[in-house]
Amino acid sequence: MRVRKIIPACTVLLLLASVCHAQQDPLPSWNDGPAKRSIVAFVSRVTNQSAADGGWVKPEDRVAVFDNDGTLWCEQPLYFQFMFAMDRVRAMAPEHPEWKEKEPFKSLLAGDMKGVMAGGEKGMLEIVAATHSGMTTEDFNGIVKDWIRTARHPKFKRPYNECVYQPMLEVLAYLRANGFKTFIVSGGGVEFMRAFAEHTYGVPPEQVVGSAGVVKFETRDGKPALVKEPKVFLIDDGPGKPVAINLFIGRRPVMAFGNSDGDLQMLQWTTGGDGPRFGLIVHHTDAEREYAYDRQSHVGKLDKALDEATQRGWTVVDMKNDWKQVFPAK
Amino acid sequence: MRVRKIIPACTVLLLLASVCHAQQDPLPSWNDGPAKRSIVAFVSRVTNQSAADGGWVKPEDRVAVFDNDGTLWCEQPLYFQFMFAMDRVRAMAPEHPEWKEKEPFKSLLAGDMKGVMAGGEKGMLEIVAATHSGMTTEDFNGIVKDWIRTARHPKFKRPYNECVYQPMLEVLAYLRANGFKTFIVSGGGVEFMRAFAEHTYGVPPEQVVGSAGVVKFETRDGKPALVKEPKVFLIDDGPGKPVAINLFIGRRPVMAFGNSDGDLQMLQWTTGGDGPRFGLIVHHTDAEREYAYDRQSHVGKLDKALDEATQRGWTVVDMKNDWKQVFPAK
Repeated sequence: MRVRKIIPACTVLLLLASVCHAQQDPLPSWNDGPAKRSIVAFVSRVTNQSAADGGWVKPEDRVAVFDNDGTLWCEQPLYFQFMFAMDRVRAMAPEHPEWKEKEPFKSLLAGDMKGVMAGGEKGMLEIVAATHSGMTTEDFNGIVKDWIRTARHPKFKRPYNECVYQPMLEVLAYLRANGFKTFIVSGGGVEFMRAFAEHTYGVPPEQVVGSAGVVKFETRDGKPALVKEPKVFLIDDGPGKPVAINLFIGRRPVMAFGNSDGDLQMLQWTTGGDGPRFGLIVHHTDAEREYAYDRQSHVGKLDKALDEATQRGWTVVDMKNDWKQVFPAK
Repeated sequence: MRVRKIIPACTVLLLLASVCHAQQDPLPSWNDGPAKRSIVAFVSRVTNQSAADGGWVKPEDRVAVFDNDGTLWCEQPLYFQFMFAMDRVRAMAPEHPEWKEKEPFKSLLAGDMKGVMAGGEKGMLEIVAATHSGMTTEDFNGIVKDWIRTARHPKFKRPYNECVYQPMLEVLAYLRANGFKTFIVSGGGVEFMRAFAEHTYGVPPEQVVGSAGVVKFETRDGKPALVKEPKVFLIDDGPGKPVAINLFIGRRPVMAFGNSDGDLQMLQWTTGGDGPRFGLIVHHTDAEREYAYDRQSHVGKLDKALDEATQRGWTVVDMKNDWKQVFPAK
C-alpha cells in the first residue's frame, strides 16, 4: 500500500477534524429559531448536488457578501472608521496648530462632539480627508493596524476589532466550510478595512470591497509609491453596492447580509437573480448587550429595507432573541 | 484503521496525480534557457520554507499579476476587444441607419480601415462606446461569449480565445500549483475579459482587473439591473495598473508579467517591494509563428520597459527562441 505512505499526518488530522466538525453545531452562538434555521436550510439546499429541487449551486458561484458596519461589527456610537479619524486628529494636532482655530477640528480638539456634528457631512468628510491622505498606502495600513491594537471602544472597553459579532463570525466560517467565497462589501474605506479584515474575519484583502479615495502612483525617495489623495473615487453604499460588486467581484452573489438601508440595493440585486437566493438583515434590538436602533437612527438607519424584508422573504435577525452571545468571549 | 476508510477514492487519485505531476516538466512548451530557468528558480525559492536565504513567501502573499493583451493572448493586428467592437458595429448596423453617414462608422462599414484609423483615439473610443453600452451587464456578457464562440482571427483562422500562448497557460497552472493566486491586470475591459477568462485561463471573474465604464443600478421590467453607460470610469493601464492593483487586490504582487510600456509601472511597483520579486516581459520576436514588434509598434509598444528590464533584472522572453510552441495544439 504505497498510497498510505504518501498521505502526510496533517491530511489525516484534517480529515478527522472535518468528520468531527460535521457532527457539531456550526452556529453555536445562535438560538434555535427561524433565523438560524433559514441559514442552515439554505446552505444545506445549495450544497446538495442530488437535491430534487435543482437547488444545487456550483462551488464557483457560491459567493456571499457581507456589509461590515452593523453587520459584522458594531457601528455605535459612530462608525468605527470615524472614531479612528477623530483619534487621528487628536494624534496629529501638534503638527497642525491651525486646527485650534478651524472647525470642525476646533470643536473636536475641545471635546465638543455637538460642535463637530454641527458641521454635518461636510465637516465629517473634512476630518476623514485630513486623516486619510498625504501618506502612502503602506504607511496608512500601518497607522490603522496601530490604532486597532491600541484604541478601545468607549462602551465595551475592548479593541474595536473585538466588537465583532460572534454569531456572524460563525456564519462566515460555516459558509467557507461549505465552499462559499466570503466577501465584505461595505461603505467603509477599502484600505481601512483591509488592515484588519484578514486577521479579524479571515477575509483576505482581495475579497474586501469598499469605498475608496483617489490614489496616485509616484516616485518617492527613488522608489515607486502609491499616495492617498484627499478626494473620493467611489462610494460603496446604497446603489453603489451592486455596482461595486459588479466591478470588483464580477458575479451576482447568492447570499447577502446587511443591516441598514445602505444595504437595500445589494439585497435586491443579490436576491433578484435566478435560482436559490438568500438575504438577511441584522436588526439591532438589544440595548443591553449592544444597542437598539432602526428606523430613526442617524447611524445605520433601517427603514425601507425592513419593510422590503417582509415582502421579499429576507431573514430578519432579532439580535436580542436570536443571538446567545453578541461578542466573542474576552 | 478507521482513518483509511474515511479517505475517499478521489483523494487517493489526487495524491497520486500530484506525485506524478511533480516529476514532470511543468513548462513543457518552453525551451531550456535563461527565461524558463529564471521562472523555475524563482518559484522554487519562494516555496522553499527552509531556504537559508529567507526567500520563502507565505502562501497568502503569493500574488502573481498578468497583463492580458500581448502577454496571455495575441494583440495583433489590433487589440481583440477592438476587433470585437468592429464586429459588433457590423452586426448592429441595420438598427443604426445613421452610421452610413457618420464617421468612423461609415469607413468601418465600407471596409476602409485607413478611414477608421484616421479618426484616431477619439474615433476608436466612439466605436467602443457605441458597442459597450446601453445593455445590462448580463446581456453584454452573453454578447461577448457569442462572439468568442463564432468569430475567427484573420491570420490564425481560429477562435480568438485559442490565440492564447500555450507557454503562458503553463506558467499560470504552474504558479497555481505552487500556491499562487493568479490575477489578470489588463488595460482591456474588465467585463469583456471576464466573459472568457475563467474558461480560457482558469482565472475567475473576481481575479480579473481591468478598465471599466460607468455602470448604473436601475429597475428594468420590475427587476434590479446593472446597465452599462457610454462613459469611462477607470483606465487600468500605465500608472493606472498599480493603482488598480491596490484598489482591487490590496496587496503588492510578488510576480508580474507584461509585454509593453503599459505594464512598466506594474512591473516597477511589483519588483520595488521588499523580499523576492520577479518581473517578466514577453518580447514578440516571432514574425513567422506570431508577430514581431517592439519599439515602433502602434499596438503593444515596448520601448522604455525593455530598457528598464536590463537595468532591473527582469526576465525578457525571446518568443522565437524561448517558446517551443506558441499556441495550443488545434
